[in-house]
Amino acid sequence: MFKAVIKSKLFKSVLDSLASTVEEARFAITDTGITIKCVDPANVLMTSVSLPDSAFEYYKATTGLIGLDIIRLQDIVGSSDESDNVTLEISEDNRLNLSSGNLKWTISLIDPTAIRAEPRIPEIDLPCMVKISGPEFLKIIKASLKVGDHIRLGVTDSTFVAHAGDNLSGVTAKIPSSELLGFRDGEASSLFSLDYLDDMSEASKKVSEVQLELGQDYPMRMLFNLNEAVSGSPVEMTYLMAPRIEQD
Amino acid sequence: MFKAVIKSKLFKSVLDSLASTVEEARFAITDTGITIKCVDPANVLMTSVSLPDSAFEYYKATTGLIGLDIIRLQDIVGSSDESDNVTLEISEDNRLNLSSGNLKWTISLIDPTAIRAEPRIPEIDLPCMVKISGPEFLKIIKASLKVGDHIRLGVTDSTFVAHAGDNLSGVTAKIPSSELLGFRDGEASSLFSLDYLDDMSEASKKVSEVQLELGQDYPMRMLFNLNEAVSGSPVEMTYLMAPRIEQD
Amino acid sequence: MFKAVIKSKLFKSVLDSLASTVEEARFAITDTGITIKCVDPANVLMTSVSLPDSAFEYYKATTGLIGLDIIRLQDIVGSSDESDNVTLEISEDNRLNLSSGNLKWTISLIDPTAIRAEPRIPEIDLPCMVKISGPEFLKIIKASLKVGDHIRLGVTDSTFVAHAGDNLSGVTAKIPSSELLGFRDGEASSLFSLDYLDDMSEASKKVSEVQLELGQDYPMRMLFNLNEAVSGSPVEMTYLMAPRIEQD
Repeated sequence: MFKAVIKSKLFKSVLDSLASTVEEARFAITDTGITIKCVDPANVLMTSVSLPDSAFEYYKATTGLIGLDIIRLQDIVGSSDESDNVTLEISEDNRLNLSSGNLKWTISLIDPTAIRAEPRIPEIDLPCMVKISGPEFLKIIKASLKVGDHIRLGVTDSTFVAHAGDNLSGVTAKIPSSELLGFRDGEASSLFSLDYLDDMSEASKKVSEVQLELGQDYPMRMLFNLNEAVSGSPVEMTYLMAPRIEQD
Repeated sequence: MFKAVIKSKLFKSVLDSLASTVEEARFAITDTGITIKCVDPANVLMTSVSLPDSAFEYYKATTGLIGLDIIRLQDIVGSSDESDNVTLEISEDNRLNLSSGNLKWTISLIDPTAIRAEPRIPEIDLPCMVKISGPEFLKIIKASLKVGDHIRLGVTDSTFVAHAGDNLSGVTAKIPSSELLGFRDGEASSLFSLDYLDDMSEASKKVSEVQLELGQDYPMRMLFNLNEAVSGSPVEMTYLMAPRIEQD
Repeated sequence: MFKAVIKSKLFKSVLDSLASTVEEARFAITDTGITIKCVDPANVLMTSVSLPDSAFEYYKATTGLIGLDIIRLQDIVGSSDESDNVTLEISEDNRLNLSSGNLKWTISLIDPTAIRAEPRIPEIDLPCMVKISGPEFLKIIKASLKVGDHIRLGVTDSTFVAHAGDNLSGVTAKIPSSELLGFRDGEASSLFSLDYLDDMSEASKKVSEVQLELGQDYPMRMLFNLNEAVSGSPVEMTYLMAPRIEQD
């Protein structure tokens, strides 16, 4: 049993942030909310969204796991007015009915066992933490994309450092802890693919505070509240991205 | 003899609405206005615009039939300021002179007998009528385009019903007569190509009232005032679209 | 020794106006400013910009000639905020360091002898002069692009005349001296390639006054103040364009 009403604008943000990673996703439904976890085909980026029941206008569900076509849902929610709500309901013949305004859609569920499950993530300990505004982070990523396809992110001398390019030409951003929105000191430096960071910084570009957790040649965790632009309960968006091995 | 002055913005709307159907069109000129009728190469959609002399800033003409290159005219009117007027005049050596601001264009007429004439339309009786706002109609068409290439439009139980897709997945809009801007009850249901409706709903997307006339597996007539956004006399835009035969 | 601070928006305009002509350019630096001259590969258009030290927020330099990758600089300045300044500094190991906000770039200089020098221009005497607003000039060029690939510009009967197309169809603009912002009478008529004029009119599209100097089958000189939109000292932008030979 599942029936929920969600703001169209929030649902759209959720789907957009997933669509850069996968085309189909597994929605884990409980009576207190929905969690969606997915991993990209290359196994580099794990994306996870937690939608607590308080983020919905209405929410009533029993526990279950369903598979949904993210691209198809994006199309549907894109057809609704941003200021409207979208009503989601699973019918008795196991299809998802969506409605918004005068429009009503029916789509088939996807067998969740046919969708790749996310890998089990070992606990990872990331010593450094940096909080930065979404627009500032986007600016660094966009500037880096002009000079290469990977970026080194790190913390040294109580400063957040980003560098793309080689020794002869490149771009560097250095932001001292005093200018950051949050900071946990340490030594960190890891290389990441800008392809993924481009999508991630686009997803967070209007967010006032993005949290980056970094280690030494280690994955990066990125967190932000996807629901900031919309009113209401926080919706935690988490990315975990594998580092790239330095080419010598 | 033909000389007319028309608001650039209105002339642009007329040309845009024709350009989705044909590249060349026959303009039937009389002393009381201009009528342009054309049919698309596949013979599915007949488009007709009536520009009464009152829709012009100045109008003086004797009866005649001329052929014009719609795409070329679109380019020219696109180069003029929307807030300006365009002056049209047929010269003695049978060319069309256009002027707007400091710019003056000369283009050749096309022999109207070289342009396909519109077919003679038998009187058709369409029992049902639905009036809906342009933005609402556009929304239904755009949502339908995401799920298929045809749409069923009809009236049943005093409700306007649009459906695209198949039984398993699709989109439905149901608008009861009480929420419509105008309504003539009956039973109607016909299938149409979304390709054409996409152009038609784009042309009427800012119009406050679009009239749809429908029957049972029968053509649809769609009417609206193309001059609503501009001030001045109504300019009637009429589409007559053949239904598609249901695939079984 | 070279260090200068310039408004990002002004530097962007300079680079944009050069980028339509060349990919690499020679910057002639003196203690009173920078002059950049370049000629397109087909030898049709010579572009020249004079940046006096007063156009900079800070300027300190000794005489020198450096080569720079214009496209690369465009990317960098495009990554900076328009409202910010860009600091330029040549390092001791002969690279250009740029910084804006928290971002810092390093790029290599290009050996200026490897970049094609501009040809020496003989003094040319252009009898007629026409001053016109950038938007008005842009409108004439855009309308002409719809009917052909060259345009005849001239002065006759105290009127600025532009014509594109052939005898049967085409576009003409006639602006009497009384409607121009400046005028030096005479007889002039030369044919030019619209490809180049498209870029040139785009570069000057927001400028209140563009000066055109014309002769009889002779090059055209076009001048305007690139810094008009930004506050501060004038930055003279000069184009010298070779005429096309009439095809008979």
